[in-house]
Formats: sequence, structure tokens, C-alpha cells
Amino acid sequence: MAHGALMPLPWKLTGGAGRLSIGAGFDVVNSGCPESTVGRFRARIARQTGIPLTGTGKGLTVTCLAAAPDWPALGEDESYTLDVTPAGAQLQAPTTTGVLRGFETFAQMIATGPDGFEVATVHVEDHPRYPWRGLMLDVSRHFMPLEVILRNLDAMAAVKLNVLHWHLSDDQGFRVESKLFPALQQMGSDGNYYTQDQIRQVVAYARDRGIRVVPEFDMPGHTTAWFVGMPQIAAAPGPYQIERNFGIFMPVMNAASESTYTFLDAFVGEMGALFPDPFWHIGGDEVEDKAALKLQPQFNQRLQGILKAHGKSLVGWDEVLALGLAQDSVVQSWRGPDALANIAKQGYRGILSYGYYLNYLLPASTHYAMDPGDANGVLGGEACMWAEYVSGETEDSRIWPRMAAVAERFWSQKSVTDVTSMYQRLEETGKWLEWTGIQDRADYLPMLQRLAGTSPVDPLVVLGDASEAGGHDIRANSQHYTTLTPLNRFVDAARPENENVRHLEVAAGRLARTDVAALRAQFQAWVDNDAALQAIAKGNSMLAELVPLSANLKAAGEIGLKALNYLAMPGAAPADWVAQQNAALDQMYKPVAETILAAVRPVRVLVNAAGKSREPRRGRM
Amino acid sequence: MAHGALMPLPWKLTGGAGRLSIGAGFDVVNSGCPESTVGRFRARIARQTGIPLTGTGKGLTVTCLAAAPDWPALGEDESYTLDVTPAGAQLQAPTTTGVLRGFETFAQMIATGPDGFEVATVHVEDHPRYPWRGLMLDVSRHFMPLEVILRNLDAMAAVKLNVLHWHLSDDQGFRVESKLFPALQQMGSDGNYYTQDQIRQVVAYARDRGIRVVPEFDMPGHTTAWFVGMPQIAAAPGPYQIERNFGIFMPVMNAASESTYTFLDAFVGEMGALFPDPFWHIGGDEVEDKAALKLQPQFNQRLQGILKAHGKSLVGWDEVLALGLAQDSVVQSWRGPDALANIAKQGYRGILSYGYYLNYLLPASTHYAMDPGDANGVLGGEACMWAEYVSGETEDSRIWPRMAAVAERFWSQKSVTDVTSMYQRLEETGKWLEWTGIQDRADYLPMLQRLAGTSPVDPLVVLGDASEAGGHDIRANSQHYTTLTPLNRFVDAARPENENVRHLEVAAGRLARTDVAALRAQFQAWVDNDAALQAIAKGNSMLAELVPLSANLKAAGEIGLKALNYLAMPGAAPADWVAQQNAALDQMYKPVAETILAAVRPVRVLVNAAGKSREPRRGRM
Repeated sequence: MAHGALMPLPWKLTGGAGRLSIGAGFDVVNSGCPESTVGRFRARIARQTGIPLTGTGKGLTVTCLAAAPDWPALGEDESYTLDVTPAGAQLQAPTTTGVLRGFETFAQMIATGPDGFEVATVHVEDHPRYPWRGLMLDVSRHFMPLEVILRNLDAMAAVKLNVLHWHLSDDQGFRVESKLFPALQQMGSDGNYYTQDQIRQVVAYARDRGIRVVPEFDMPGHTTAWFVGMPQIAAAPGPYQIERNFGIFMPVMNAASESTYTFLDAFVGEMGALFPDPFWHIGGDEVEDKAALKLQPQFNQRLQGILKAHGKSLVGWDEVLALGLAQDSVVQSWRGPDALANIAKQGYRGILSYGYYLNYLLPASTHYAMDPGDANGVLGGEACMWAEYVSGETEDSRIWPRMAAVAERFWSQKSVTDVTSMYQRLEETGKWLEWTGIQDRADYLPMLQRLAGTSPVDPLVVLGDASEAGGHDIRANSQHYTTLTPLNRFVDAARPENENVRHLEVAAGRLARTDVAALRAQFQAWVDNDAALQAIAKGNSMLAELVPLSANLKAAGEIGLKALNYLAMPGAAPADWVAQQNAALDQMYKPVAETILAAVRPVRVLVNAAGKSREPRRGRM
Repeated sequence: MAHGALMPLPWKLTGGAGRLSIGAGFDVVNSGCPESTVGRFRARIARQTGIPLTGTGKGLTVTCLAAAPDWPALGEDESYTLDVTPAGAQLQAPTTTGVLRGFETFAQMIATGPDGFEVATVHVEDHPRYPWRGLMLDVSRHFMPLEVILRNLDAMAAVKLNVLHWHLSDDQGFRVESKLFPALQQMGSDGNYYTQDQIRQVVAYARDRGIRVVPEFDMPGHTTAWFVGMPQIAAAPGPYQIERNFGIFMPVMNAASESTYTFLDAFVGEMGALFPDPFWHIGGDEVEDKAALKLQPQFNQRLQGILKAHGKSLVGWDEVLALGLAQDSVVQSWRGPDALANIAKQGYRGILSYGYYLNYLLPASTHYAMDPGDANGVLGGEACMWAEYVSGETEDSRIWPRMAAVAERFWSQKSVTDVTSMYQRLEETGKWLEWTGIQDRADYLPMLQRLAGTSPVDPLVVLGDASEAGGHDIRANSQHYTTLTPLNRFVDAARPENENVRHLEVAAGRLARTDVAALRAQFQAWVDNDAALQAIAKGNSMLAELVPLSANLKAAGEIGLKALNYLAMPGAAPADWVAQQNAALDQMYKPVAETILAAVRPVRVLVNAAGKSREPRRGRM
């Protein structure tokens, strides 16, 4: 990966002549950093290059000028400088945390070249724009196994994120072992929870990667799962069952009973010891019960007092703002930049999540265009991965690689906004992220293979490479989902954003001679694929829903071929033909099997181009 | 996967009408088995199908008639019966171990169908042919991280293997933590060893899957790594360094010194407690020191006494046979069936490894043709994966899926020998094995991508899909390897046996009309690929060695196209043309970049077919 493939882009980068070879004999040399940190760097480079690092004592020297705090802290110095020359590389930072960030820059720059692996000569000075750069993982609506959390921490560290916001409880599940109140996880999780040892493991794993862990125990609403084992803290008597549906539900904690606060004091004490970060997310959103809503200010006041007694500052969603918040609180805005500005105006610190909801499966460019802004008190932002339509198997592909573009928004200069450059670097970064162990690419083919059974998988790959998975709204509006609905369909394998189709769009816009040939071949493959797909769909109920999608792909391919024919001739395609094709493409772009036929986009580019009059092109197309 | 895709084939299988649906509402129901076992079954089915199992209490009922012993034991009852009907499935076995075996049969039979996932009606009665069905993993020449061992245990269990023979020490590394003699791992492993906690984890993980763990501490030769920290037990004074080269080396334990046996007594005591299996592998092979070789009978006698005192029976390679072995010993033969027969004739028990050396990267059919035989005392066999040319990254793809064919040889009836059926089932089994977490397919593309860097990877995929990795001899004869040589080249990504090429061979032999079209397209793709590969090889030193391989692939494609042209015409291709092409193909089949151009094989089939006179074919080809 060359310098141009870095993500997030460093604040200052100057290239030079020559390159440092990363071959046999290359080593990472420790100067004042924790040995475990340097050992992880060695293992990362060995994994990425396949070269065993053998302790030669030359290569990349990493210098930590001072020890990092015991736990990553909001606002700590994350800066670093990195110098690479043919003779060696120097990575230096005020603390270990900066060295962690700089190491990722170095690893991203390892490229193939005339001498094997190498890093080109460069001088980098870098630091983050925002001190709070987070990813929220919802593990309540669908439980995410431990290894999913761990590998996401590795990928987060790779793009210099520093906050895991862990949404640990909701109506659909309570996911942490409490030793004081074991009924919480025993009755409220279907057995799917993290033990306290596992929590400690995650927190330590995150710390080693310079990532804070902020737990969220959403209250007083979103608490049905708590009440299955502890109905005594609910406002209504119960009994309660784990919620299997999605939406906003009535159950709410009893804000009027002293025993609720006695419980919360003990609970925060127990959990506060598990999570060393001084911030504690109370959720506080979407209280549906009218009576409870009235009591929410009082509830939040009491909860805030409890948190303070346990040394925690409060974080909450927008809804907590009106309720007499302590000035050290942080408000997370799902409402938008105006809400965030209002938060800052009132003297609070804020983080932006509006525009960063990954579970909508929007293009990276959409998230990339959203900026938390520079108002005083804006700490940064957090992408959110709500888990209605995602399982441990599909989590990674719904987050990555798009998350890397959001990470760049949080780290790099505000002026870094070129979308073409972003996509070019995102594609390389996506490949590179595989070496962190993230599974976003790895599960695509096995999931399609599972659907194909013993039939050839190729027709599903052709269709999948032309499709994009529908996001939250498309799925919510398509059928009634519960937490028990299998997420093993084509839409679950399909990618949120399709690199292959983006290449076709670029080719359709450029239309160089090789582009025309490539597009023609691709369109023909789409046309030919339909018969193959229909053949494997016969007698396989899980593929039945794809028959109309495949028919649309065939039709799109045919339109594309016709558009190329028009484009090979002088003049313009008839306006009514253009209009008819656009109408047909509009129909094809509607979700089928909760999937979007992304293939429509490059075809539309060609149809519209064909509608414009032009000179004859030279040569055959 | 339908019944026909089972591997190993059960001893008795009768199909019937109808099928059991594995949809929402399917559950695994426990009748007298350990709950943890049934929980793992649930998780396996959920992973394979993507369907969360929700405790409905109907589906597959598993019945353990009696508890298994605390640890898997040689010769225990592994039989089971499995009945699947549309109303439900019953898996029953005398002990948990049989249930483990039967569960894998059930999981393999889950197929896609008109009602989603399903298992067709069937009655199975099954048991193993041999009680010792093993895989030897060498973790000394290259260390294999813990997760590699664990996922290989999962894959082993999936094909009903029951012995992990763990080659834990050799000249190149001592891989177990000793608390009594910590210099062993501290000085002899480069930090790459398993802690005692990890050893216990592996042994328990194996036990839960019905797999015994037999440790091998090879002695008195193959012990250089021991002597780095403990030169006092060596025959020569030292000092010693960890051996970086491969081969047979002089260092040997001091069989003439009483202190050696004092050490061994303490060592066997410590390790014997870590490894509960009553068998202990002493290696005993390839003693190079002439003086030591004379003392080896005496050494083995003393060692045998020590083992006996610690409740262990001896296992050793052929070399130990001549040395007055106790009758409870087991001899592992790398020499061959004659040696094995001789072992049995002398009243010893034996296991066959000759013919099952996976690191030679031979076709599955070669291993499949080797049979341990039915002599009295033959316990079974073990495949061996020596680790000169394999790393943790490539280990899986060098073992799987070929290991499944060996597992069938060890489990199924002797009469199960049809190679066509084996390959058909092996291919499906290979896909299915992915759900165990084994990485044999997963690492192919990332390893090629690593070599391509930011260039398109497609030319490497086309070349890789036409190639096979060279095995032990090819690599040993190509360049001087040490334990520090990177294993990150094209040959390391290439598969040992190429499914794609096998399909082409079948097509070339059959030559139906669709075969001709497919072969023509494939050959043309090989021809066209050369320019693309040369383009990405420019300025990338790691691809330079592939330029001649790619040129050969182009040439093979051209010969294939010409042969198809001859085959489209009546008569025969000229004999001198056939001879010339065969000579050219012979040249192309020689290793290039330690890789075999498997693509030559289907082309050769066509060239030879073209040389035979024939009637004109109807229709265009």
C-alpha cells in the first residue's frame, strides 16, 4: 500500500526519494515502550507480510517518551511523528498511545515493490482532530460473541478509533454477568452474555490498543430484559418476558420507588469496577410510558448522583439534555448537527452520531459528508451499529470497510473531503484491514455457498456482485422480524456497498475503449447468468426470492448492451427510448428480496449518455 | 449436502422417502448426554445453517446410554445409530463418544431443498474400522499458534478422527512450558511455546470432541533445542543453538549418564500429568551419532522403565522396534506396510503412517490407496504433517481437505475405494468443513492479494487456479530453506491439489459439447492472462518468479486450443505433432517457482485424444 492509500490521512505527510526494505532482517526495535506493545507490532507485520521477524535489531525503532496512563483517557496526547528513510524508520510519540496510532500508519504504508515489501521514504506528523472517535456496538438485539468484539477492536485500532461504546442492555437482552444480581443475565439473556472475566478481557484488549470502553446500560426505558429476572425494579408489576420484537416498548424502571435507586447504587458500584473508564452511558432515550416520562428528570437526577458517588460522568442520548444535567456530562446526538450545536451552546460536551448510523447500510460517501463541526464542546463522533438485522456472522461486513471513512472524518483535517480519493483509499484500506482478522470479506462466499448447497455457487456470486443489501428501513418494511428470525439469506450475504458496481460506474462515466469492452462483457455475463440462477433455484426454497432479482439483472444487462450500441453510433438515442429505459430501471432499483440491484446505476449512466447527441467514435466498440 | 456427500462413509446407510426440515423451530434435544456437548451441537447447526436454535424441544434427539470415560480411551465404543424421519431424528449411542461421531454424520447430511434446510430420511448404523485414527502435527520446525491447533481439532472431529499426535519438540524448537526445567522453553523456543494452561486447554478441547492427545517428545536424537537451555543432558558438551536448518543432526541425549535418567524421570512426571492419555510417544527416530546409536537400546530400556513408573505406554517410530520393547508398546511405521506387518508379527501393536505424509502434497487419491491392512495388532493409522515448509498461515490448506480422504480410509469399510466417488464427496466435504472454522480455503485470496499489493489480483487467481504447490522434495531441492525463510510466496498460497483442474480433466475426458465450450473458454483465459500477469509483475520482485510459470500456462492454453481444433475434425492429429506437444507439456510440468502447472494435465488428455483417429463429430465445436 503506497502513501496514497492511507486512511485516515495524516495531518502532515512529506514524501522523499528511496525506500526502506521490509524483508528478512527487518525488525521492530523498542526504545522505551512496553515490550508487549512492540511484540504485537512484530506479530502484525509478520502476519501482513508473511515474514517472520527475527530480532536483528534494525528496521523500525519505536520510541515512547513517557508511559501512557494506566487506562486510555479522553483528551490524552495521541500525536506521533514517523520518519522513514532507506536506512531505517523512526516512530516517536509522547506516550504509548501515539506510538499505537503511528504504527498503524507505518503498517498501512507497507507496499510491494522491486525489492519485495517496502515503505517509501516519508515524514509524517500526525494527531487527531477530535478526542472522541467511537463505534457503538449493540449486542442486545443480537448477541455478538466475544471474538466478534475482539476482532472489531483490532480493526478499530487500525483506523485510529479510540472509543468502543458498548450497548450492553436493551429490551431484547441483558448481556453482562452481574454477581450481585445474577437474575439479570440468567433470566434476561437466553444464556448469551459476557462473563465478568470476558468483560475484563475486552477492556484490557481495548486498553492495549488505545481504546476506551464506555458501557451503556440504557435506562429507564429499553429495559424489558432486566425485568424478566427483576420485576421489582419495574414501574408495572409484570411478569416480563425477553422482548423478541423490535421497536419502542412500554416497560420502564420504577422512578418513584426508593428501592430502584438502592438497586442502581449497588449495580453501578459493581459494573463501575468492571469498566474503569470515567464515563458511563445511561442511554435515556425513547421513554414511551407517559407517566414515566414525567418522572424521567427526577430519575436522571438521582442516577447522576449515584454515578457521581461512584466516580462516573454521565453520557446520554439527546433526551437527557433538558433534565438539569451536570456540566461534566456528555450528550450523544442522534438528532443532528443542530441538536449538537444546541448542546454545545448550553455548555455541554457533545458527540455526533446523526449521519453515522451504519445499520442503514448507506454509501460511505454519505457518512463521509457529515461533519461534527467545530463548535466548542464538540468532542467528536460515534458511528452506531444497531443490531436488529445483524448477527455475529454478518456484523463485520455491515461495519467494515465503511467505518474507515467515518474514522477519517473523526481523525483527519476538516478539509479532507475528496470523495474520489476517499473511495480509492477505502478500497485499499479494506483489503489491508483483513490482516487485522476482521471478517467482513471472508464470510461472503461461505454464506452464498450455504444457500447454494451442493449446486454451483457461481450464479449467486454474479448476482451478489451486482447487488447491495437493503438497510434498516428496507428490512423493517419488508416483513415482521424478531430476534429469532434467521439472518442467513442472500440479503445478509450481500454487501452494503458494492466495489464492483462502483468500478462499473466509473467505467461507464469514462468510457475509454477498454471500459466499453469490460462493460459489454459484464452486461453479457448478467444476461447469461439468469438461466444459471434459475437452474440452481429449482427445488431450493431459499433461492426462490432471487428469481425476480435475477430477471431484473438480466434486463438491466440487456439495456446496458443496447445503450452501448447506441453509444457506438453517431447521433443520440431516441428520447422516448431513454425515458422508457429510465422508467424500467427505476422499477428494477426497488428492493427485491430486501436487496437493491446496484447494477442499475452504471446502466443508467450509459442510458443517459446515449440520449445525448455525439460525434461518431473512432474505431470499433 | 445429500447422503452421497458423506465422508467418511458410514458402514450401513439406508435411505427412505421424505425429509426432516431444519428450519425455525428445529432444536437439538438432550436425552442423557452432557449438556455442554448438546450445546456445541446447537451452535454447530446454527453456524452451518445461520438459523438460531430456540429450544422448541423437537428436532434431533440425542441419547447417550452411558457416560463416556473421563478421557477418550483407545478402543472405546464409538458406534452410533441415527434415524432421520420427517417427524424427527434420533441419534443414539452407547456413550457420548458415539454421539459425537453420529452428530457429524447428521450435520454433513443437512442439505438445501424445497423447504429450506433439510435432512433426507435415512437409517445409519456406524462404527469405526480402526480404533486409532490420527493426525500428527509438527509444531517444532514451525510453531503453530494455539488457534491453529484448536481449529484443526474441530476439523478432525468433523471427519471422526480420534488422535492428535502432537510433535512438540525437535531440533528446531521445544514447544511446551516446563515449570521444573524452564530453560527448555525459555532458551529453546524463541518464545514460541504453549503454556501449561494452553496445553490443558487443548487437551480438554480435544476430549470434548472425542480426541486423544498423544504428546511426542522425540529423543534421544532430534533434541538440539533441548540442549540450548540444558546442555548437561547432551552427549557432547555444547554450547548449543536452536537449529535453523532442516535435516538430521548429530546432537543426542547422553545415554551414558545417570543424570539424564534422573532428568527424564522428573520430566515425564511433570508432562505426564499434563497429558492424561496413557500413551507417550518417544520418537526414537534418526539417531545420527554412531556412538549414541549403539547406546539407543539401553536408553530406550531405561526410558521405558521411567514411562512405566509414570503409568505410560511407549509409542515410537519404526527404529524402536529392535530394541527389546515392552509388549504394550505401539510402533508407528514410516517405513511401510511390510514394516508394519513385521511389527504385528512380533506381537506388537502398530499404526501406519507410510503413505500418509501430507507434507508431500500428493493427491488425495494417493493417500486413499494406502491401506493399513487387517493384520492382528494393526490399530490404524496417522497422517503426518511435518512442518519444514508450512506456517500457521498455510497449515490448514496443507492438511485439508485431503485429510478427510485419509480419515475415510481409517473409519470406513475396506471396500470403500472408489476414487471418483471419493473426489465427489471430498469436494462437498471441503466446503462443509469451512463451518468448523478451518481456514484452508480462506487464506488463498488474501495471500495472493498480499503479493499483488495494490495491483489487481485477478491474474494471480487465474494462475493459482491452474497451479499446485510443490511438496517437500520439490521445495527441499529448490533452495536452502531455514526456519526463518518467509513462507509467503505464490507456492505457499497455491493449493496442494487443484479442484478446478480436476474438473477440467474430467471435462477433457468426457468432451460433451458443453465441456468443449468450457475448455475452450478456460484455455483462452490462460492465454490472455499472461499479458495481465506480466503487467502486475513489473516492479514487483515477489512476482518475478511467476513470469515463466505464466508463460507456460499461456503455452499450455495454446496447445489445448489447437488440440480442440483437431478434435473438431475427423481423422487424427499427426503423430509427430502429438509427440512434440507431449514433450513440450513434459517440460511445462517441471516445477517453476516450486509450483506445478497442474493445467498441463487436462491439456495432455486432449492432445492424446486428438492423436487417435475418430469419426467427425456432429455439429460445431
